[in-house]
Amino acid sequence: MYELHFAVPMAGAIICTFNSRLDAAMVSVLLEHSRAKILFVDYQLLEVARTALDLLCKRTSSKLPILVLIADSEHGSEFDSNIDTTSVSYDYEYEMLVANGEAGFEIVRPKSELDPISVNYTSGTTSRPKGVVFSHRGAYLNSLATVLLFQMDQFPVYLWTVPMFHCNGWCLPWGVAAQFGTNICLRKVRPKDIFDKVTNHKVTHLGGAPTVLNMIVNSASIDRKPIDHKVIVVSGGAPPPPQILANMEELGFTVSQLYGLTETYGPSTSCVWKPEWDLLAPQERSRMKVRQGIPHVCLDEIDIKDPETMESVPNDGKTIGEVMFRGNTIMSGYLRDLKATKEAFKDGWFHSGDLGVKHQDGYIEIKDRLKDIIISGGENISSVEVETVLYSHPAVLEAAVVARPDNHWGQTPCAFVKLKEGYDDIVAEEMIKFCRDHMPHYMAPKTVIFQDIPKTSTGKIQKYVLREKAKTLGSIS
Amino acid sequence: MYELHFAVPMAGAIICTFNSRLDAAMVSVLLEHSRAKILFVDYQLLEVARTALDLLCKRTSSKLPILVLIADSEHGSEFDSNIDTTSVSYDYEYEMLVANGEAGFEIVRPKSELDPISVNYTSGTTSRPKGVVFSHRGAYLNSLATVLLFQMDQFPVYLWTVPMFHCNGWCLPWGVAAQFGTNICLRKVRPKDIFDKVTNHKVTHLGGAPTVLNMIVNSASIDRKPIDHKVIVVSGGAPPPPQILANMEELGFTVSQLYGLTETYGPSTSCVWKPEWDLLAPQERSRMKVRQGIPHVCLDEIDIKDPETMESVPNDGKTIGEVMFRGNTIMSGYLRDLKATKEAFKDGWFHSGDLGVKHQDGYIEIKDRLKDIIISGGENISSVEVETVLYSHPAVLEAAVVARPDNHWGQTPCAFVKLKEGYDDIVAEEMIKFCRDHMPHYMAPKTVIFQDIPKTSTGKIQKYVLREKAKTLGSIS
Repeated sequence: MYELHFAVPMAGAIICTFNSRLDAAMVSVLLEHSRAKILFVDYQLLEVARTALDLLCKRTSSKLPILVLIADSEHGSEFDSNIDTTSVSYDYEYEMLVANGEAGFEIVRPKSELDPISVNYTSGTTSRPKGVVFSHRGAYLNSLATVLLFQMDQFPVYLWTVPMFHCNGWCLPWGVAAQFGTNICLRKVRPKDIFDKVTNHKVTHLGGAPTVLNMIVNSASIDRKPIDHKVIVVSGGAPPPPQILANMEELGFTVSQLYGLTETYGPSTSCVWKPEWDLLAPQERSRMKVRQGIPHVCLDEIDIKDPETMESVPNDGKTIGEVMFRGNTIMSGYLRDLKATKEAFKDGWFHSGDLGVKHQDGYIEIKDRLKDIIISGGENISSVEVETVLYSHPAVLEAAVVARPDNHWGQTPCAFVKLKEGYDDIVAEEMIKFCRDHMPHYMAPKTVIFQDIPKTSTGKIQKYVLREKAKTLGSIS
Repeated sequence: MYELHFAVPMAGAIICTFNSRLDAAMVSVLLEHSRAKILFVDYQLLEVARTALDLLCKRTSSKLPILVLIADSEHGSEFDSNIDTTSVSYDYEYEMLVANGEAGFEIVRPKSELDPISVNYTSGTTSRPKGVVFSHRGAYLNSLATVLLFQMDQFPVYLWTVPMFHCNGWCLPWGVAAQFGTNICLRKVRPKDIFDKVTNHKVTHLGGAPTVLNMIVNSASIDRKPIDHKVIVVSGGAPPPPQILANMEELGFTVSQLYGLTETYGPSTSCVWKPEWDLLAPQERSRMKVRQGIPHVCLDEIDIKDPETMESVPNDGKTIGEVMFRGNTIMSGYLRDLKATKEAFKDGWFHSGDLGVKHQDGYIEIKDRLKDIIISGGENISSVEVETVLYSHPAVLEAAVVARPDNHWGQTPCAFVKLKEGYDDIVAEEMIKFCRDHMPHYMAPKTVIFQDIPKTSTGKIQKYVLREKAKTLGSIS
């Protein structure tokens, strides 16, 4: 996939990477929607791809994509000696195809730098994936910005703990190359592998979705290794709880918080660390670290606005508005979805759907997803703030809070919690009391359910699944 | 000047910085040619500016530029308590003008990113200055590239040893700001000040024209201070002799070699240091360091071509051709000089006038300026190579080699040498013998003249002055 991030655009084509956890039905839908001409597939997923093509064949009379198998004969077998690709048909094997390529092939350059370079299907916190289109211009600008945001010196060593299919790896396939870097890939993301790769390959940077951070801080001590060089962990996605950030620092990682969406080519803002913050107490520092910060130098503008009036909110750290963007590193639009594109760009700004505040120094802080906010008795409750308190309880491994419909209050907070091993005796009442002791009572969850937390393959919590479940519970009042 | 690098473009205007060593006559010529509307001038140069405006007034009936005095009342007096600005008339004082500015002024953005942001008059190794036009697009791309080339992390501390008026400080006013940096300025560049500022302000980066490097390595030991943190010295302009690079390393500086021209927005290539080169012997490492290397990531293409046939030279490290560029970070053209612009862009490539070779790994190395090459008996002699040998002689402080016309050979190498203190007894014959012992005889200078070396205010040796002098000597043969 790394090679194809260069080869496909250089061939004048558009790269569209699929989530490796999709099933054959969804793959066939996305093949049809994207109108892909060639499908490159890792041997582990050959059967899914073949089935998807067979499904597609039944639905359409158009020519099917060419199927190219990436056999990974060098590294693949250690994981899956039992996968047999010989019984499934395909058109070419990748390494053979490359070996037989034209040596004198001339790079096909885009006619305009606004031509598309990639399509990224959003990974499914909502049920209907949309194809986010990147342009060459946006991609090279965000690649440069990413290098600066990651503080990547020349010759970085990047460990791919965040999948490369997700948002073109935040433009890092191109950014790492621009700095002459080395890429370390993993077939499976496990704590032991992370520590092994970091120490053996002197990894300088890795991406950490909050769940990756969670995995690291909760790893068994036998899987850990002491880190004796600087490792920058760049965390994106949902804001990580302060406690997890503090634990990461104790393990020797330097955590840096970025914020962005697939629609913003990945990272758009970073919490640039002010030297004077070094003097703050550890807990205060953690509170600063979770801020999303300021836009990178290649982004035109970010603002927090009232989506009704389009007025900017004041820099008071309190007034909540919607985070909005404009500039070169904002998507060209959603592929073949004019309605969604128009909606996203209403009033000339890209509407992120995230809610946040602006602090006095201009740093922004995300409070919640627009659709994750809980409105109880007319008060807005940030699900993120409730989760932050839950994470500070020693028994909590993972937590997610959603709205539960309520006849009296409209909605009440409902917490889904996964407990750490050895804490099975904790009951809901205890957790609710802990919350009431640490936040205004109206914000404390009225319901706590202990269970596994459903997540996407990129580690994002699937709140819509939990929201559906909370709905089925009915009203408390 | 730093503030104006932002204020002027944000006002929708074009910044045109003049060399501070220009006399009133030249300033009046450039004011007329550039059609400047406002002239900001440091108090030290107020009289020159006033005289220039008076000269301009006699020549033209157009409205004169508004004259704004930068009084620098905070720092200026320690240098020049004798300069009296009260007797010279001007329109505004800078700080007052700023204090009275419109607080609600809205940034005037360029209509097109290809609109000009600056005009840079080339600093005069030739006699007729040309106005190099930068666009907003080129400037932001080269600013980002410069940050990467300088390996500037967040919060750099940059010491301005190379004047900011020169080529807009290689785009560093913008680049340093993009990384939240601190700028340290000097009214005079003296070795003691360099060591003081580097240690007191923990300078992380400074620019070093070869003459700045020379000044540092030949500084009195009383002026020096031990350097105990990493200081990257980025050297541009003419290739520095390997001996000077080695001495800089001994003093604790990390020297990095960049190459570019005003026409390429400053830095265009860098000698990216390959980790395996750390294993080379010190002299070999110095030889690698003087290579100009590979283009930065924002430059489309650099090549070395035969200017007659426009064929690329082979990657053999030997065949000499002209260095040519194309891409976004190449000037828009010379202001009001279509002829010079067309000539510079002949055959669709910007012709640098520099001669170089391509090594097997694609790294380029400049051998000489096209007009500095000496052709003796049909053989090309690189003046830089002869100078490199001269610099390896312990008595030599500075050296410059040019062609002396010759009836028999066409041209012969003529060396101008400035000796270090205490070496006044060295004679020309000894220097010539030293050269013949260290290079092919045909390359050794036939003439050696001991004198001060004339330089521009940016430290470039004025070879055209020396060439004129060599001409007056007549033929040896």
